[in-house]
Amino acid sequence: MSRRSWLTGLIGHGVGPSLTPEMHEREAERQGLRYVYKVIDQPDGLIDTARLERLLASAIELGFDGLNVTHPVKQAMVPLVDETAPTVRAIGALNTVLIRDGRTTGHNTDVTGFRRSFADGLPGADRASVVLVGAGGGGTAVAHALADLGVRRLLVVDVDQVRAAALAATLDGHAVEVETVAPTRDGLGDALAGSAGLVNASPMGMAAHPGSPVPRELLRPDLWVADIVYRPLETALLAEARATGCTVLTGAGMAVHQAADAFELITGRTADRAAMLRDFDELVAAETSTSRDTTGERNR
Amino acid sequence: MSRRSWLTGLIGHGVGPSLTPEMHEREAERQGLRYVYKVIDQPDGLIDTARLERLLASAIELGFDGLNVTHPVKQAMVPLVDETAPTVRAIGALNTVLIRDGRTTGHNTDVTGFRRSFADGLPGADRASVVLVGAGGGGTAVAHALADLGVRRLLVVDVDQVRAAALAATLDGHAVEVETVAPTRDGLGDALAGSAGLVNASPMGMAAHPGSPVPRELLRPDLWVADIVYRPLETALLAEARATGCTVLTGAGMAVHQAADAFELITGRTADRAAMLRDFDELVAAETSTSRDTTGERNR
Repeated sequence: MSRRSWLTGLIGHGVGPSLTPEMHEREAERQGLRYVYKVIDQPDGLIDTARLERLLASAIELGFDGLNVTHPVKQAMVPLVDETAPTVRAIGALNTVLIRDGRTTGHNTDVTGFRRSFADGLPGADRASVVLVGAGGGGTAVAHALADLGVRRLLVVDVDQVRAAALAATLDGHAVEVETVAPTRDGLGDALAGSAGLVNASPMGMAAHPGSPVPRELLRPDLWVADIVYRPLETALLAEARATGCTVLTGAGMAVHQAADAFELITGRTADRAAMLRDFDELVAAETSTSRDTTGERNR
Repeated sequence: MSRRSWLTGLIGHGVGPSLTPEMHEREAERQGLRYVYKVIDQPDGLIDTARLERLLASAIELGFDGLNVTHPVKQAMVPLVDETAPTVRAIGALNTVLIRDGRTTGHNTDVTGFRRSFADGLPGADRASVVLVGAGGGGTAVAHALADLGVRRLLVVDVDQVRAAALAATLDGHAVEVETVAPTRDGLGDALAGSAGLVNASPMGMAAHPGSPVPRELLRPDLWVADIVYRPLETALLAEARATGCTVLTGAGMAVHQAADAFELITGRTADRAAMLRDFDELVAAETSTSRDTTGERNR
């Protein structure tokens, strides 16, 4: 007679504008589930381990079925969960915690989300050699998704070359050759010249970081170009790539599929991804029309 | 574009079988709300102040909009909330905590729930003098509801006469004359002889406490009889009262209206009480048919 309900939430700094809670709740509603997804914003951004441990213990005690976590706690949460998916151990970051009978398991649906977005949006793309701009958390998730997708050579560009090297190290043992590239016009030009695709995982393209990470003249029609920024969906890079004739992939797919994957992990049910994509488009369009967002957002 | 959701829960010992979560969630569903009500059972029953403070702080931090609390923490929660309704201060017990912008307010919907149940179910009942059996938490809530309802004289019977006197003291300053009655057949007989109504707020009548708190021969057709036990709904007392010709009131109304009142406080919306009563009947019927419950339950 009594039906179960689902409870989850998002822990991070500045997560108020996230579209993920609404995407989860709409999908649950479509499936007739009692489901609430709470924003658990950490306004000061100072989330030490003790605080994170307390939040996780509280979520378990109060009946949460799972949590998403985002910047700046994706790494800090890893040692706090009881078990981790292999990807989480390789990357050292998670974005989803499942809670079952008081035990916690960490997953990373940024990786699976980008993988799915790429497989759906760029199905025939040449995967021999890919240039990845940005070696932070989002870049690392993208790199592992690209390795899973069969990319054979990955050229990593970041102004912080130590970070680029650290990303490369997380792929040791994977069937992908990783090289770091000097963050210069020449470095980028050489890398792109020998590659079929480009992914931007840097913040460039968001309103707060205007511009494109790649000079327009380095683009060419046979290059595919993906961006993980999703506010705006049409970044300067993607606009120039489209104008050049490139096949492009926006950040929408990763944003939606990371949410769909988390929803499926938490509920054990299959998400209606096409409907979630329509929801996402609608939510983004509504934001754009109200100019709600001023700094932009990206998968990270 | 994003709709808000509601999150609440029930803290207490042995609250797993409570029907309140299902009543809340069904009413929310009827109204098209995203609403989850979690059972936060405290299995060992040892809920000290530090633990309760932690649970409350966690609920605030994780985005709960309110909480119900029940045995054994209705009293212990009172000093932990920021503000309290006057009834809570008079009784020293609460069953509902509203959370708004991090601030907490304590309410007691056991009092308002019994009051509403009585007003609806026994509208013409003589309120000159009433006998109340049981001076625990449930009895105290009932006593205050009866005072609010205009009862002029309340005769309180409890095997623990200190407890009966303590209940009487909580009504100092209210427009009701309260007397404690010796818990003997003669004491009860004299009290009933001069009264128009009887309320059982003791555990007698539950499966774990079989029997009736009042010898059958003390009942008479012009007496109204209410019970706050609701598992079973038809207690030995009510069955004998019906057989005697008394007008009776079961514990269902209090169980439903305390939930409806809490729902209204939390959401600011009007509950469909008739539908909630039907839900309650259906849930109780389903339990009875599956013999799920073995110890009984009561409003308390």
